[in-house]
Amino acid sequence: MSQSKILTLLSDFGDHDVYVGVMKGVITQINPNLTLIDLTHQIPPQNIAAARFCLMNAYDYFPKGTVHLAVVDPGVGSQRRAIAVKLGHGYLVGPDNGIFSGIISQHSVITAVELTNINFWRTSQPSSTFHGRDIFAPVAAHLASGVNLQELGREINPETLVKLDIGECWENTNGVAGCIQYIDHFGNLVSNIPARYVKSKTWCMQVKGLTIPGCAAYSDVQVGEALALVGSHGWVEIAINGGNAQIQLQVNWQDGLQVLFLQSC
Amino acid sequence: MSQSKILTLLSDFGDHDVYVGVMKGVITQINPNLTLIDLTHQIPPQNIAAARFCLMNAYDYFPKGTVHLAVVDPGVGSQRRAIAVKLGHGYLVGPDNGIFSGIISQHSVITAVELTNINFWRTSQPSSTFHGRDIFAPVAAHLASGVNLQELGREINPETLVKLDIGECWENTNGVAGCIQYIDHFGNLVSNIPARYVKSKTWCMQVKGLTIPGCAAYSDVQVGEALALVGSHGWVEIAINGGNAQIQLQVNWQDGLQVLFLQSC
Amino acid sequence: MSQSKILTLLSDFGDHDVYVGVMKGVITQINPNLTLIDLTHQIPPQNIAAARFCLMNAYDYFPKGTVHLAVVDPGVGSQRRAIAVKLGHGYLVGPDNGIFSGIISQHSVITAVELTNINFWRTSQPSSTFHGRDIFAPVAAHLASGVNLQELGREINPETLVKLDIGECWENTNGVAGCIQYIDHFGNLVSNIPARYVKSKTWCMQVKGLTIPGCAAYSDVQVGEALALVGSHGWVEIAINGGNAQIQLQVNWQDGLQVLFLQSC
Repeated sequence: MSQSKILTLLSDFGDHDVYVGVMKGVITQINPNLTLIDLTHQIPPQNIAAARFCLMNAYDYFPKGTVHLAVVDPGVGSQRRAIAVKLGHGYLVGPDNGIFSGIISQHSVITAVELTNINFWRTSQPSSTFHGRDIFAPVAAHLASGVNLQELGREINPETLVKLDIGECWENTNGVAGCIQYIDHFGNLVSNIPARYVKSKTWCMQVKGLTIPGCAAYSDVQVGEALALVGSHGWVEIAINGGNAQIQLQVNWQDGLQVLFLQSC
Repeated sequence: MSQSKILTLLSDFGDHDVYVGVMKGVITQINPNLTLIDLTHQIPPQNIAAARFCLMNAYDYFPKGTVHLAVVDPGVGSQRRAIAVKLGHGYLVGPDNGIFSGIISQHSVITAVELTNINFWRTSQPSSTFHGRDIFAPVAAHLASGVNLQELGREINPETLVKLDIGECWENTNGVAGCIQYIDHFGNLVSNIPARYVKSKTWCMQVKGLTIPGCAAYSDVQVGEALALVGSHGWVEIAINGGNAQIQLQVNWQDGLQVLFLQSC
Repeated sequence: MSQSKILTLLSDFGDHDVYVGVMKGVITQINPNLTLIDLTHQIPPQNIAAARFCLMNAYDYFPKGTVHLAVVDPGVGSQRRAIAVKLGHGYLVGPDNGIFSGIISQHSVITAVELTNINFWRTSQPSSTFHGRDIFAPVAAHLASGVNLQELGREINPETLVKLDIGECWENTNGVAGCIQYIDHFGNLVSNIPARYVKSKTWCMQVKGLTIPGCAAYSDVQVGEALALVGSHGWVEIAINGGNAQIQLQVNWQDGLQVLFLQSC
């Protein structure tokens, strides 16, 4: 048996309607032998930053050649571009609104195209509200089936792709300052501070007037206590052992925080 | 590689339990090579109208020969019939309670059978509460694997299949009157008025004392404002650009509405 | 086409993040031709008893040789063992915390190993928070691809596997006493009393001061009324026809109940 090609899907469509099912139907009409994997369809509606984070943290774990289809698209029906991007390890298909700017900040773009070739769309007259079905899903299916990226439309300068500014962390006198860039299902608060800043350091985290110890594992604190640690995504995060840090600490998206190194804790 | 056969699943089982997983297990015991695609399992409990709408709007987007397994089944254990239906483009398997009446209103039935042949059930003594596992899933798996519809049971007259009356829209002096037939995850209010009524017209929508402009795309109004437009399903719907129309307009399932043509707006 | 190997996934990761997607990416990097089936990822956070119940009730419905990957893992990063287990009908991979003790109470263990062979891990330096990605998913993928269980690590005595005590039901003067061991998406209250106790009996159920008739099907009572019956899982359960028993009867996990036979009802 030849190797299945993988196509992942991410959206803010939720799972109550058939929008995702319809995109998969369109894909299977083009190629029923692709392997479809859902990253998530529970991105908060129109939250491009959350989609950017999720895509960035999933990309490296898929096989070479995987096609990632992402539809969080508040600008559907306006003039925002529809794009496909080729990187060293995989392909991206979706709106040009910054959704892919996390992956692109970590991996070089080989080629980027605007999806102008309507021969690879589902219809030459796409709806104004559901490009996921009419443009992105069919293009992703063709790409995963071996069509060359260049056939999909007009090549564009990768420098012109929309970037989403989520704020960078910065080093200061006592450590590193940053903010919350993502909150997961468990209520874990993921900062925008990469693990390398705390490696081999003794440190603590300050957020909303609280000081939280920097630890190696949940079990380093008692059940119910807060800790900061390097999360599985590779970012410094804040959690509560056996609890929900977002709810219990009342911290939210974008809130500022500060890593302090030993002598300041 | 031969072409994978597609089997879709829709239910009101939610995703907290293993009911859907168990149906998929039963299917893979019969044929592990089918491609299984979830339409949705978040149909509101026992809401046959919502299931009817979702199936009707997904059907056309799947490959010819796809088998659609649908289990929203408040009458399980009673005398309602279990059925399989052959149409020109695909197959339907589920309870005879109107769940398929949307698809059947748009596509001719070739053959319909009552599932009386227990050789294709999982057990000759099905539970009284989970025909999805014991009857529908195994029958759908056999059908997708090449068994002829006629082998599954006694042929029945398609005219006797249960229809669900969701109310038809009707033309009146100033336009078209109808109602809300579905509300999606974004809070978009989908009417029962097909797109053809507003094509090439200037129009507005009245609902709950509000007058809402008929538009071509979300971006025709400011963020936070209501609009009416032809949704991706092909029905006239009401949305709020960047918002949730159900919550913000306090409109609900079955509420009446009126499309008004130009001179009346 | 050769027969696809089935790998099921169960966790408490929810569907808002990419944790499940990342595990599937890791699996497809090892073998893109496996068939992946989600049991559920909505186990209440760290609820090992719910996971145990779901696994026990799904196991029998999958093909021989299926690999079940389960990650509800409050002890991740501590000294709890990572295990793989071979049974007559399938394989289990996950933490040794009792999650599999329901299946193992019903089926004999052939071989059990502790996952000590880091050659089958994703990395020799697994994160302290996400063994699902770094240990369990890659091990399950290798096992489903034909690696022998014994290669995965050190053989351990099946008697030493952690058991979860959920309380057994017991016969008393008037019938059988037990408790609620699971509550499903519909609000149905699943007891720990197996069906065999009420077979061919006339019976009722007492819970929280209520007496509920023992029935054969939902339709034996009016819509809105409570009934007790043998659920599709094979346990005695309490439901409301067309309603939610958990909410309407105010019964919860672990609450005690009593089956009474005819003369006492």
